[in-house]
Amino acid sequence: MCDDCGCGDHELVPVQVQEHILADNNHRAAHLREHFVEAGVLAINLMGSPGSGKTAVLEATSRIAEGLRIGAVSGDLATDNDAQRLRRAGIQAQAITTGNACHLDARLVHDALHHVPWRDLDLFVIENVGNLVCPAIYDLGQDANVVALSITEGEDKPLKYPTMFLRADLVLLTKMDLAPHLDIDLDAMIGNLAKVMPDPRVIMVSAKTGAGIADWLTWLTARRAVIGRAA
Amino acid sequence: MCDDCGCGDHELVPVQVQEHILADNNHRAAHLREHFVEAGVLAINLMGSPGSGKTAVLEATSRIAEGLRIGAVSGDLATDNDAQRLRRAGIQAQAITTGNACHLDARLVHDALHHVPWRDLDLFVIENVGNLVCPAIYDLGQDANVVALSITEGEDKPLKYPTMFLRADLVLLTKMDLAPHLDIDLDAMIGNLAKVMPDPRVIMVSAKTGAGIADWLTWLTARRAVIGRAA
Repeated sequence: MCDDCGCGDHELVPVQVQEHILADNNHRAAHLREHFVEAGVLAINLMGSPGSGKTAVLEATSRIAEGLRIGAVSGDLATDNDAQRLRRAGIQAQAITTGNACHLDARLVHDALHHVPWRDLDLFVIENVGNLVCPAIYDLGQDANVVALSITEGEDKPLKYPTMFLRADLVLLTKMDLAPHLDIDLDAMIGNLAKVMPDPRVIMVSAKTGAGIADWLTWLTARRAVIGRAA
Repeated sequence: MCDDCGCGDHELVPVQVQEHILADNNHRAAHLREHFVEAGVLAINLMGSPGSGKTAVLEATSRIAEGLRIGAVSGDLATDNDAQRLRRAGIQAQAITTGNACHLDARLVHDALHHVPWRDLDLFVIENVGNLVCPAIYDLGQDANVVALSITEGEDKPLKYPTMFLRADLVLLTKMDLAPHLDIDLDAMIGNLAKVMPDPRVIMVSAKTGAGIADWLTWLTARRAVIGRAA
């Protein structure tokens, strides 16, 4: 139970309790979404396995995103290492330490917003706890779900963790610089994403070399333009 | 809620429900443990992030473990890919597909045992769902917790996911063959493990080159000798 976690214990956690938790979260998330849209802020829920390169992608994005005001919250069970890294990269970042919880929820994000000048941002990234399962279940008021999937993780992850990829608007295939050193079939990996994602969109990136980061920024800019028209 | 998951929702899931879930699991796990000890089977709970190399380590182990009767169950949300791989490597393996659940529990392992001739084994590996948080919370009747941590995941994972490493008897640092291609400070990574693990034991391995696999097998053999004396 992550000391408090009932993941998968659907036989034991009463259905009413489960429904109440998700309904409460959805209500809070809808409230957050209204605020983000109203302020013209593009909110992204950035998910992925531990060490998939979420923070590194944001650092690389900040390096080339001149004039774009970026803020973030970084979820981890412990430490504020990622928020510190993001701040050093010029991103207004706040850590959310979850204790034993394996994902963020709308209440945690809402509370953290008190520490980020989110209304003045162009892009607000919610860097979720490293986990390829539960973060996908909790709506955080984001405009889009983005999954960082490292090519070191293997071809079949989309098939083995469908919950995550079913809800992904974009997958960033990270650590592309390692491709020459891996026995990885990238065509198979992208093919597996196409089998699971309702609308498959994939950008190959390397935070180390900067490859693909401009394409990701273009995707963000296009997504933000839509938000701007809605505001 | 992983569609059924209340991870971290300690404010909403009644404490009594949480306690009931863990108590029920602990009861089942104790029952499993009795059986494993009685039969002289070394049971290992092998955990780690998605793509950390758990299956690859078992394949490499089987290649050099002549005469050792190895069986396994492999947990994943979907697919039986890992069990298929293990069977091809000579391991008597059964898949456990969890649906949306992010970890195994004692009931799932118990049910899967009907499909594995576990009493005839020397080593029974429970390959948990790829997740660096929740699998550590659920006792499965194992003798030892082993965590596969890929060096591609970065130095600070032990500090960011303390729940997992606090309960680890051994950490396998995997994918060592990639070390020359990574900006990784291995001393810092091992130092961080030492900060979190109560009794730090680390073996560096590469399933690709076979490096370290013999040391891991030696560790298993020593562990099994203790079980044998208890039986």
